[in-house]
Amino acid sequence: MIRVGLLGTGRIGRLHAETIASHSESTLYAVSDIDSESASELAIQYNVTVKPADDVISDPNVDAILIATSTDTHSDFIEKASLAGKAVLCEKPVDLNLNRAKECLDKVSTENNSIMIGFNRRFDPNFAQLKESLDSGEIGKCELLTITSFDPAPPPISYVKKSGGLFRDMMIHDFDLSNFIMDELPVAISAIGHSLIDPEIGAAGDVDTAVVTMIYADGKITVIKNSRRAAYGYDQRIEILGSEGLLQAENIVENSVIKSTTAGVLSAKPKYFFLERYIGAFKAEWDAFVKSIDDHKPVPVTLEDGVTALAMAEAATQSQNTGRTVQLKEVL
Amino acid sequence: MIRVGLLGTGRIGRLHAETIASHSESTLYAVSDIDSESASELAIQYNVTVKPADDVISDPNVDAILIATSTDTHSDFIEKASLAGKAVLCEKPVDLNLNRAKECLDKVSTENNSIMIGFNRRFDPNFAQLKESLDSGEIGKCELLTITSFDPAPPPISYVKKSGGLFRDMMIHDFDLSNFIMDELPVAISAIGHSLIDPEIGAAGDVDTAVVTMIYADGKITVIKNSRRAAYGYDQRIEILGSEGLLQAENIVENSVIKSTTAGVLSAKPKYFFLERYIGAFKAEWDAFVKSIDDHKPVPVTLEDGVTALAMAEAATQSQNTGRTVQLKEVL
Amino acid sequence: MIRVGLLGTGRIGRLHAETIASHSESTLYAVSDIDSESASELAIQYNVTVKPADDVISDPNVDAILIATSTDTHSDFIEKASLAGKAVLCEKPVDLNLNRAKECLDKVSTENNSIMIGFNRRFDPNFAQLKESLDSGEIGKCELLTITSFDPAPPPISYVKKSGGLFRDMMIHDFDLSNFIMDELPVAISAIGHSLIDPEIGAAGDVDTAVVTMIYADGKITVIKNSRRAAYGYDQRIEILGSEGLLQAENIVENSVIKSTTAGVLSAKPKYFFLERYIGAFKAEWDAFVKSIDDHKPVPVTLEDGVTALAMAEAATQSQNTGRTVQLKEVL
Amino acid sequence: MIRVGLLGTGRIGRLHAETIASHSESTLYAVSDIDSESASELAIQYNVTVKPADDVISDPNVDAILIATSTDTHSDFIEKASLAGKAVLCEKPVDLNLNRAKECLDKVSTENNSIMIGFNRRFDPNFAQLKESLDSGEIGKCELLTITSFDPAPPPISYVKKSGGLFRDMMIHDFDLSNFIMDELPVAISAIGHSLIDPEIGAAGDVDTAVVTMIYADGKITVIKNSRRAAYGYDQRIEILGSEGLLQAENIVENSVIKSTTAGVLSAKPKYFFLERYIGAFKAEWDAFVKSIDDHKPVPVTLEDGVTALAMAEAATQSQNTGRTVQLKEVL
Repeated sequence: MIRVGLLGTGRIGRLHAETIASHSESTLYAVSDIDSESASELAIQYNVTVKPADDVISDPNVDAILIATSTDTHSDFIEKASLAGKAVLCEKPVDLNLNRAKECLDKVSTENNSIMIGFNRRFDPNFAQLKESLDSGEIGKCELLTITSFDPAPPPISYVKKSGGLFRDMMIHDFDLSNFIMDELPVAISAIGHSLIDPEIGAAGDVDTAVVTMIYADGKITVIKNSRRAAYGYDQRIEILGSEGLLQAENIVENSVIKSTTAGVLSAKPKYFFLERYIGAFKAEWDAFVKSIDDHKPVPVTLEDGVTALAMAEAATQSQNTGRTVQLKEVL
Repeated sequence: MIRVGLLGTGRIGRLHAETIASHSESTLYAVSDIDSESASELAIQYNVTVKPADDVISDPNVDAILIATSTDTHSDFIEKASLAGKAVLCEKPVDLNLNRAKECLDKVSTENNSIMIGFNRRFDPNFAQLKESLDSGEIGKCELLTITSFDPAPPPISYVKKSGGLFRDMMIHDFDLSNFIMDELPVAISAIGHSLIDPEIGAAGDVDTAVVTMIYADGKITVIKNSRRAAYGYDQRIEILGSEGLLQAENIVENSVIKSTTAGVLSAKPKYFFLERYIGAFKAEWDAFVKSIDDHKPVPVTLEDGVTALAMAEAATQSQNTGRTVQLKEVL
Repeated sequence: MIRVGLLGTGRIGRLHAETIASHSESTLYAVSDIDSESASELAIQYNVTVKPADDVISDPNVDAILIATSTDTHSDFIEKASLAGKAVLCEKPVDLNLNRAKECLDKVSTENNSIMIGFNRRFDPNFAQLKESLDSGEIGKCELLTITSFDPAPPPISYVKKSGGLFRDMMIHDFDLSNFIMDELPVAISAIGHSLIDPEIGAAGDVDTAVVTMIYADGKITVIKNSRRAAYGYDQRIEILGSEGLLQAENIVENSVIKSTTAGVLSAKPKYFFLERYIGAFKAEWDAFVKSIDDHKPVPVTLEDGVTALAMAEAATQSQNTGRTVQLKEVL
Repeated sequence: MIRVGLLGTGRIGRLHAETIASHSESTLYAVSDIDSESASELAIQYNVTVKPADDVISDPNVDAILIATSTDTHSDFIEKASLAGKAVLCEKPVDLNLNRAKECLDKVSTENNSIMIGFNRRFDPNFAQLKESLDSGEIGKCELLTITSFDPAPPPISYVKKSGGLFRDMMIHDFDLSNFIMDELPVAISAIGHSLIDPEIGAAGDVDTAVVTMIYADGKITVIKNSRRAAYGYDQRIEILGSEGLLQAENIVENSVIKSTTAGVLSAKPKYFFLERYIGAFKAEWDAFVKSIDDHKPVPVTLEDGVTALAMAEAATQSQNTGRTVQLKEVL
C-alpha cells in the first residue's frame, strides 16, 4: 500500500485525492496547502493529517508525493521530494522557465527514484487505444498527425497573464501527446496564432487561437490546432493518416440521446471540460504511477518528457514571435 | 434498344420517363394519359407521340409497357399488355382487391413474357448491399428483422379513403421488402394499429400508426413499424439481427454538414420523401427490368410477388380488425 | 449518514458495496451471505462485520438493507426488513411467482417505510435524458415506443431453467422501462418468441428471442425486442416516435476510436454487458435511494412497480404460450 | 437553349457532355479532340458533329465553349473563345505558368463575356450548405478553417512529372475553396511537405503529402492538408471553427449499411474518387454557368479566381522550396 502526501488541495488536488483513496494499492496519508482552510477541509473528509509541505515531504511514512500546487513551486518540490527519496507525480508543467526546468532535471537525474509528470492525456482510454492501433500497424506507417484541442472558454485574463502563454500553458499537453504518439521528436516547429477571441489576451502578449506545424526527420508532419474557445464544449480529437488508413479519436459526448425534429437531427455536445472529459485518464494515470512503483519500473512519463514538451512550447513561442521556423535543437 | 410505351404521365410517370430516356438500352416511344394535357406536355419534352392507352399497347413498335396509371386500372392494363406480348413494369399495388389480383395472375400465367411489379425498394443500393451482406453470411443466420418506414406527413384524407388502407397502400412495400430479405414467406401475421395522427383517418376506417409482427416456420420474426407522420422527414430503416451480428441500413440524409453550438450537435434530416430518397432505386429498378428483357431472364420482382404482398396486407388488415393472429394460408 | 446492511456478496452485491462506500451520505455497515467465505472477503475489504442475514436485519444500527441475494429469498427479506423498520433496496425481480409478490406487497403496504426495487435502467443518464426530453414535450405526444435489449450471450442452461423464463428474467427490465417512459400501463400484451439460439433453451420450455407488442388505452404502442445473443455486445437502445419528432438513446461504446482502411470504417462495439454499460445507472440509482430516505420522500421505483412489471411478464408468458393477446387486467 | 461546343472528349469531357445534354437549358452541339476516334465516339452517342477545335470556336451556332482539353491548351482556348464572343467554362487550372495565366487574364479582361473556371467543389451541395450556414452567422465569426483533401491513390509518376506539382495540380482546388469560404485572400502562405508515399515523386521534385497554413489580415487562419493517398478512399472534409460554434462537412460514403460483429461496428468508406464524390457538384456547376448566361450575370467563379488560386499555389511551392513564409503579394 503506497502512502501518499498530497501538496495542493485545490480543484485538481481534490480530484487526485479521490483517485488515490479509491485505488486498491494506495492511500492518502497527509495533505498540505498554503490555504490552510482548504487543506483542513480535505483532511477531514479523508481522515488524514495536515502539515506544512516540507514536513509532508520529510515524513518517513510517506512513500510518494503528488504535487498539485501552483506552477512556480513545481521545480522546488520535485527536487526536495526526490532528494528525500520519494516517488513523485507532479502536475504539468515542470516550470514556465525552460532553464529552471532543465536545472531541475540535472539536479535529480542521479537520484534513483521515480518522477512522473502529469500529462494525463496519454492515459485517456481512447487515446491509448488509438496509440495501440497505430503501434500494431493497423494503418501502416504514420504520415500526418493532427491534434485538435479547443477549450470551451478562455480563462480569466488574470490567469492568462501569468500562464506563460498558450503554447506553454495549453498546447504543452498536445506537444507531449504528439511525442507519445510519434515516439520521436520533431526537427522543426512553426507556429502562427492571434488573439481572435479577446483583444485583452493580445494586449497581454498572448494568442488565443494558434496552429503549429512540426516536421520530423523522415518528412512526416504533425499539425496542432488550439483555441481557447469552443462554444459547444471541450473539443479533443486526434487524427492520424497512415500509409494504410486513418485513425481518429473522436470526442466523448454528454449522452447518447439523438433528437430528430423539423429542425434537424440533434445530438449531445462534447463533455464540457477536462474534469469531465479526462476523469478516466486521471484514474489510469494514477494506476500507471502506482504500478511503476510497485513493479520498480520507470514511470511512463518522465521528468525529461516534461522538459522536452516545455522546450517545444518555447520553440513555438519563438516561432510565433519571429515568424520563422525554429529548429528544436535551438532550444533543447 | 427497348422502345417503351408509358401509361400515366403524373408525378411517378414523369420520373420513369426520365429514367427510360437516360438509359442507354431503352428509349421512350409513346405516352398516354386520361389527362391529355399532361400527356402532351411530356410528349413534347421527349419528342414522342401521344396515343390512347390501348393504341400504345397494341403498337407493334412498342416492346415494353410501363404502367403508372391509377391503381384501379393496373390489373386490366397488365392483362392487355401481357396478351399483346409486351414486357410490363407496373407500379405497385397490382390491385386493391386480392381476388382481382389473383385473377389477373391466373390470366397471364400462361403467357410467355415478363411482368414486373414496381417494388422499387428492393433496388435501393443501400438495401441491396444489406441483402448481399446477409446472403454472404456476414452476420450468420437471420433471426429478427425490423423494418421502420415512416412517411413525412399523412396524405390528404381524400386519398386515404380510396387507398385501401395503410396495410395495402403503405406497408405493402415493407411486406415485399421482408419477403425479399427473408427469401421466405411468414406463417402468421399479427397487426395492431390506431389513428393517432388524425381522427379523420380513424373515422374513415383506417389507421395511421401500425406495428405488424410476422413469424416464420423456423421461429424467426419480422417486425414492421409504420407511421404516416415523421416530423423530421422520410424515415426508412432496416435492421437485421443475425446469429453472428447486426446489419442496419440507416437513413440517407440531406447533406453531410454538422453544426456544433451551445444548442448541441446538429446534423441534416433524412431526405424528405420517396422521390428524393429512392431516386437511385428507381434507376436501378429500371436497369434490372431492361437487363432481364435483354437477357431473356425472369424479372426480379414477379406478378406473383405483387399478389403475395397484397395477400399479406389483407392478412394484416384482418388481424387489425379482429384482434387475432391471421395465418398467411388463410388468405393466399 | 445511512448505515447499510448488505445481503448477498456475489457479483452484483460487490458492485453495490463499492457504490455504498463511495457515496458521501452512506456507509457499508454489515454484510451477509450463505457463502461465508465470500462474505468475509468483502467484509475485510471494507472493514465491516459479517453476520447472519436475520441479525443484519435486526441490528438497530442498520438504517437500510440492500437485498442482492438469490431471487427466491427476495420476498421474505423484503417483508422482514420492512417489518424491522428498515429502508429497503431490493434487486429485481420481487419474486418469480406473481402471487407471492402480490402477497409481499399486501403484507408491507401498511408499513411506513421505503421499499425500492432495483430497476436500475430508469437511472441510466442517457435514458433519464431521453425521458426528460419526452416529458418536456420536445417531440410532442408519444406514439410509438421501441425498446431493443439484446444480451451479449445466453446464460448457462442451468440458469435458464430456474430463471422463470425470458419474460420474467430479462424482459422484466424493459416492461418497467416502458412503464417509466409511458407513465401509464398498457391495456393488452402480445408476445411471440422462439428458441433460435439454443434448442436446449426451447427444450427447457423457454425462448431466447422474443418480440412483445403492447397497446395503450389511447392507441399508442410499445414494441420490445429481446434476444439472448448479440455477437457484437450488449445492445441497449430506446426509440420513441412522437407527434413532432423522434428520440433515440443509442448504445454506449467501448471507445471513440474510428479506423478507416480498405476494409471500411470501423468503430468500437457497445460496452460488453450490464456491469460496464450500467455502472452510471447503479450509482445514480443508489443516489436516488439515499436522497429519498434523507428527504423522507417516496422511493422512485416502488414495490408496486416491481409487482406490476412481474404481472406484465406473466401476461407475456401466457400470450407466448397460448398465441392470443392477453389483457393486463387478467393478471393484475 | 444554349448550344455548347465541347473541346476535349476524355473522361472529364464525357462527364460534361452528359451534364450538358441532360440540362433543360443547354444542348451539346459539336465536339472536338486531338484523338479523333474518341471525339467521333462521343459525337455518335449524342448525335452531334465533330470538328477541329478552331472550327468549333468560330461556329456562329455555338453559344458556349467547354474546355476540357489538356492544361497546356487552356489559356489559348480561353483567349480564342473569348475573342470569338463565346461564353467559356474552362477546367482548372488556367495554366501551370502563372505569368501565362496573368497574360491570359489581361488579354480577355476587356471582352464583355463570361469566362468561368471549373472549380467544381464550390458547387458541391454539402460545401454550399456549409458556406450558407457560415454566411448566415450560424457559428458567428470564422476563426479557423481546416480543409482535408486526400486522394485515394497517387497518379502515375508520368502524370506527376508534368502536373506542375502537388500545389498547382491538387491543392489548387483547396486554395480556391478557401477563398470561396473566406471571401477574402490570405496575407501569407507557409507550406511544408514531403514525398512519404513514393520516393519517385520526391525524385521528380514534387511532394505527395503537404500541409499549408495561411494567415489573414485580421489573424484568422486556414489549414490545408493534402495527401496523394488515403487507403480508405477519397477524403474530402471541411471544418470551420467560429466564435459561436463549429461547422463540419463530412465525407459522403458509399452506402448507409452498418455491420456490427465481434470485430466491431463497420460502416462504408467514402466514395472512391471525384467522379463519384462530386457528381452533384459538376451538375450544379453547369447549372450555375447556364443561369449566369441566361441572366446576363457574372459567372460565379471568374478567370481572376483561377489566376488567384494559381498564384497561391505558386506561393506555396516557393514556401515549400525555401522553408520561409511567402507573402501573397510577392506573387500576385
